[in-house]
Amino acid sequence: MSELRHRRGDGDGNEKVETAGESDHVDSEEEKVLEEKYVDEMAKSLPQGTDKTPEILDSALSGLSSRWRNWVIRGIFTWLMIGGFCLLIYGGPLALMITVLCVQVKCFEEIINIGYAVYRVHGLPWFRSLSWYFLLTSNYFLYGENLIDYFGVVINRTDYLRFLVTYHRFISFSLYCVGFVWFVLSLVKRYYMRQFSLFAWTHVALLIVVTQSYLIIQNIFEGLIWFIVPVSMIICNDVMAYVFGFFFGKTPLIKLSPKKTWEGFIGGGVSTVVFGLVLAYMMSQYPYLVCPIEYSESLGRMTMDCEPSSLFRLQEYNPPQFLHSVMKVFGRDKLIMYPFMIHSLALSIFSSVIGPFGGFFASGFKRAFKIKDFGDVIPGHGGIMDRFDCQFLMATFVNVYITSFIRTATPQKLLQQVYNLKLEQQLQLFYALKESLENRNILNTVP
Amino acid sequence: MSELRHRRGDGDGNEKVETAGESDHVDSEEEKVLEEKYVDEMAKSLPQGTDKTPEILDSALSGLSSRWRNWVIRGIFTWLMIGGFCLLIYGGPLALMITVLCVQVKCFEEIINIGYAVYRVHGLPWFRSLSWYFLLTSNYFLYGENLIDYFGVVINRTDYLRFLVTYHRFISFSLYCVGFVWFVLSLVKRYYMRQFSLFAWTHVALLIVVTQSYLIIQNIFEGLIWFIVPVSMIICNDVMAYVFGFFFGKTPLIKLSPKKTWEGFIGGGVSTVVFGLVLAYMMSQYPYLVCPIEYSESLGRMTMDCEPSSLFRLQEYNPPQFLHSVMKVFGRDKLIMYPFMIHSLALSIFSSVIGPFGGFFASGFKRAFKIKDFGDVIPGHGGIMDRFDCQFLMATFVNVYITSFIRTATPQKLLQQVYNLKLEQQLQLFYALKESLENRNILNTVP
Repeated sequence: MSELRHRRGDGDGNEKVETAGESDHVDSEEEKVLEEKYVDEMAKSLPQGTDKTPEILDSALSGLSSRWRNWVIRGIFTWLMIGGFCLLIYGGPLALMITVLCVQVKCFEEIINIGYAVYRVHGLPWFRSLSWYFLLTSNYFLYGENLIDYFGVVINRTDYLRFLVTYHRFISFSLYCVGFVWFVLSLVKRYYMRQFSLFAWTHVALLIVVTQSYLIIQNIFEGLIWFIVPVSMIICNDVMAYVFGFFFGKTPLIKLSPKKTWEGFIGGGVSTVVFGLVLAYMMSQYPYLVCPIEYSESLGRMTMDCEPSSLFRLQEYNPPQFLHSVMKVFGRDKLIMYPFMIHSLALSIFSSVIGPFGGFFASGFKRAFKIKDFGDVIPGHGGIMDRFDCQFLMATFVNVYITSFIRTATPQKLLQQVYNLKLEQQLQLFYALKESLENRNILNTVP
Repeated sequence: MSELRHRRGDGDGNEKVETAGESDHVDSEEEKVLEEKYVDEMAKSLPQGTDKTPEILDSALSGLSSRWRNWVIRGIFTWLMIGGFCLLIYGGPLALMITVLCVQVKCFEEIINIGYAVYRVHGLPWFRSLSWYFLLTSNYFLYGENLIDYFGVVINRTDYLRFLVTYHRFISFSLYCVGFVWFVLSLVKRYYMRQFSLFAWTHVALLIVVTQSYLIIQNIFEGLIWFIVPVSMIICNDVMAYVFGFFFGKTPLIKLSPKKTWEGFIGGGVSTVVFGLVLAYMMSQYPYLVCPIEYSESLGRMTMDCEPSSLFRLQEYNPPQFLHSVMKVFGRDKLIMYPFMIHSLALSIFSSVIGPFGGFFASGFKRAFKIKDFGDVIPGHGGIMDRFDCQFLMATFVNVYITSFIRTATPQKLLQQVYNLKLEQQLQLFYALKESLENRNILNTVP
């Protein structure tokens, strides 16, 4: 770590030399003081997450020291959340999608509220409505894209909904333009700078929250397992890093979050990898968790039944060299496992190495604007955003991982797109494909 | 306009009442003064675009009053730019794509430089490198997506490039993650707030500049006409609004840009519609401008030859009622025109009604941060960003318009995707499509 710090120091110095030539402005002492006063003034007005604990718990735990009390409260609500998570999975994909939507709205609210406080917007014309309007339009756009991707064929059958599919992007863009024009018209001289800053703030929030929750929904459609495993990994990593840090934590990891330690980071990482393998093994057995959610042409409805893909069928592997001796103890020389478990390894490594940086980013953000938590919805944990900071980054990773390594444009997906064409176009495509296949001698031209 | 202003005033009041309940913080006089001092301090350090005029021009025009001098200088450079634009079109799609890339980089630089100055980042560790790194990765991602879309088949043939196509998203995301981790590691306590603000600033700049220039490239691939017509319309609207405003301007249009007038807005709008129709008529005749840029399986290379689509073939229309009398003067009762001209009407209306709001937005932005121009590259016009503010919004509109109304998933495009599949998957798709077509009695099952 000291090495890292050292290198950072170097960078600092270099950059100073580089930029000095480009501007002759140097922060004067007076300005520094002025700015710090400004930042402090702002911080006063920010919403500070409070650790409000339900009263019953409060009195029951009054005998404990504050350190252990925090442990117990945090523990109880961790288990409550895990329980709720299991219930949701039992509820099926629709319940999950609605939850993702709710979480997304709540996260957006938490981020936007900080923006409001930072730029002190009391009385700023229209701004609250505008932010929510942008949230609405971007959700309309992205959820629509998802629905069309997966339910396109169904929606196309209903005549009066057809134009919603055909002109989806146009409608969304028009809605956005309305918001854009509304923003420009709402500009008021005294507030220009704050209005533009909040406009940017809103868009960054949309980028973080809405686009990534759109990716989460896409992952759910690939099969519940692509949602449950990564989410559980982040939870596991969070919990285990906290536990390891609590019991063995000594060496500070990063200045940003003074409570995080190397022991927690490594302990959490190893636990996550093991946990990921076990979870992947257990879950690969259930078609309910493994099958993508698809529209079945023959059944005429959405279905989660399928012949599990080869990813979820047991397979024999030659174990890597370093495992040979371990294997011998168990008297085996072949490793029998689901191919998905190898992918779970990639996911768990990401979630324990890069994932925490999502958390550091969030801590840094909180420090930058001098707030303790994003909110105070979950006792002992802070706001929703405090729990989901790493989930968003992870969701993007899973989505990219699926598109790159798993879903290499399946014939099924393309077929759905073909069925969206007009009839004569379907025929046209059919004959063109037939000709091409024949020319390449793949299809035998039966006389 | 007074009505608009009035309603805005109302909104202001309402919002005040709404938000008052949520926070008891009210701006004190002291804070206001503090903040204004802060904003003014900041403005001092911002780069102010200067109207530097080449010396030769300066001496040649010394006899003119400043108002006319500005006219002449602006005029000369307008014509120079229009000439350059024509030269570029002559240079073909590759030259255009490279220009779009250059313009994009320059715009990004202008926006980012303002950010640097606003947050006074001299000595902020790594920031300049980080912004450029993010520009690089997002360009790698988006240009790559484009190239794969259009050249995928070609690249796939070259074995050592194949992984770049297959894992494109994964590589891009990994690159982004490196930047993200780098940012978190570069956080330094004293600068937290500015670093996060600049991080957001960079991302908004990427959103505006990079994603929209990606859309421009997509438009170029649809056929040069989809690029030339909209760009010319914005230029025409800018120029004509300026001309009409200069000669007839009386009624101020919007407080944001005091120089803009209703006369300019309306005159520019009408000119743009007429200009658009004429331009569309002229350009529809050249296959070079009209044909999409596609990879031809038979030629084995990219081609711009095609049988022009029905959009660009003359067609008879029954003129609308109000045109009947006008038509009679010319002794005709049918309107003969290209269907594309109707689309050009939609484009020109957007470019003259919504387009200017892109300009208002840019003026507001400049006012918010108290700068005159984004840069000083083009004498009489300011920075590149000053000329391209409306082009970005327009490009998005054109792209959305094409996807919604023009390019309804052509069989050709889908076929290209099919050819990207593995051979056995192509066959699988073929048989599935055949079965489905037979089941629906579209394809006759020849015994």
